[in-house]
Amino acid sequence: MSDERPLILVTNDDGIFAPGIRVLIEEVLPFGRVLVVAPDKPQSAMGHAITIHSFLRLAPVEMLDGIEAWSCSGTPVDCVKLAIYKLLNGKKPDLLVSGVNHGANISINVLYSGTMSAAVEGAMEGIPSIGFSLMDHSIEAQMEHVRPVIRNVTGNAIKHGIATGSCLNVNIPQVGPEPLKGIRICRQAKANWEDEFETRLDPTGKEYYWMRGEFRNDDQGEDTDVWAVENGYVSIVPVQYDMTAHHAIAPLNTWDHALR
Amino acid sequence: MSDERPLILVTNDDGIFAPGIRVLIEEVLPFGRVLVVAPDKPQSAMGHAITIHSFLRLAPVEMLDGIEAWSCSGTPVDCVKLAIYKLLNGKKPDLLVSGVNHGANISINVLYSGTMSAAVEGAMEGIPSIGFSLMDHSIEAQMEHVRPVIRNVTGNAIKHGIATGSCLNVNIPQVGPEPLKGIRICRQAKANWEDEFETRLDPTGKEYYWMRGEFRNDDQGEDTDVWAVENGYVSIVPVQYDMTAHHAIAPLNTWDHALR
Repeated sequence: MSDERPLILVTNDDGIFAPGIRVLIEEVLPFGRVLVVAPDKPQSAMGHAITIHSFLRLAPVEMLDGIEAWSCSGTPVDCVKLAIYKLLNGKKPDLLVSGVNHGANISINVLYSGTMSAAVEGAMEGIPSIGFSLMDHSIEAQMEHVRPVIRNVTGNAIKHGIATGSCLNVNIPQVGPEPLKGIRICRQAKANWEDEFETRLDPTGKEYYWMRGEFRNDDQGEDTDVWAVENGYVSIVPVQYDMTAHHAIAPLNTWDHALR
Repeated sequence: MSDERPLILVTNDDGIFAPGIRVLIEEVLPFGRVLVVAPDKPQSAMGHAITIHSFLRLAPVEMLDGIEAWSCSGTPVDCVKLAIYKLLNGKKPDLLVSGVNHGANISINVLYSGTMSAAVEGAMEGIPSIGFSLMDHSIEAQMEHVRPVIRNVTGNAIKHGIATGSCLNVNIPQVGPEPLKGIRICRQAKANWEDEFETRLDPTGKEYYWMRGEFRNDDQGEDTDVWAVENGYVSIVPVQYDMTAHHAIAPLNTWDHALR
């Protein structure tokens, strides 16, 4: 008899040995069968990168009893592609979950995030996909309060589905003195990074640079993901991969397009 | 006397020694002063990746007479950040151009593309930004017909500006027996990749995989970038970095969000 339970693909960008993915696997396991394909090393901030100039490897990993798990030499998006087109021979999983990321992916960080890019790739494949991120970079972050969030959003996604062409970006505040206030559906805040490069000299006297940045949010909207997590709520932003700026089409049609 | 002409930042993802960036520099030079910061090696399909687990390097490069040019050890988005926050000390260029990419960046390829991610990063910084891509992967691609397109779009962008929060994705068909039919303002086609992994064995007998894919477009719209380039037109898609799926917010608000 074949197993009719939903097939759930689990990935992340912190690597298969990060604590966050283990919490995620444990919480989605009651909803179906689980296949884990995650990077063999940290792949934070890899965005939607894929590996085309080199080859990829997969290696089986012992994780939890009875769970099929593979580490992948590539990016989070490579993991999704290998899971579907190599391990599953083109069969699409019923759900994709990515995370739990050690660090927030609010506002424009959705574009830099490997965690969210894996979910976006899932959406492109027509799979209901969810990225979970915790506003705490520590590898020892407390995650107990994240568990009911995973259960709630996963259960809802299986029950209701997710709008075609979109996936969910779920950000969870750090544990604090107060319990979570609840879940809010949000838009991506209009924030930005003010970068800085720390210049150092190597032993031969040549310069090298470390990127540092300060995240600045001037968006005062109370319907944003930044507002939600800063005020004790879990934020859910539906994210689409149609990047067309439809409002910008009309002005472009007024340009003189004659080629000279 | 300070130079009052517009400052134009030029980057790409094929690397600073690719022919396409030279064509781009030559054509934007009459519009202002040029600063080139581009990867020191091919960085195709790097998406919006940035380098946070390692350091970055810059090295001066001799290109065209009187042009300041630097090769960068990182991704296309790293190049934009280093240009602004290291070389220009936080001053924003007046225009950013990226390309000319050796290969198309139509439809969802905007998400994988390093060329376009550099332009999106420029838009995030409030800089009018344009990515140019030619539908020809060959390093020896003929680019004479691309030159008037660069002149037209660059001139228009300087004259009219680009809508806040967006940048332009310009794709140019391969040179053919007919001249270009003109420029069309488009939306991103709803196409996708059907991937395939070619399995090989290394000399020790272990498997490795090469990603290959077939691009499939089932979007019949004549307002798409795919339609335009397949029919002899240059496509311009305005691209935004607000990825919120606004149409998906209402259904999500009907979910039971009680945390248990």
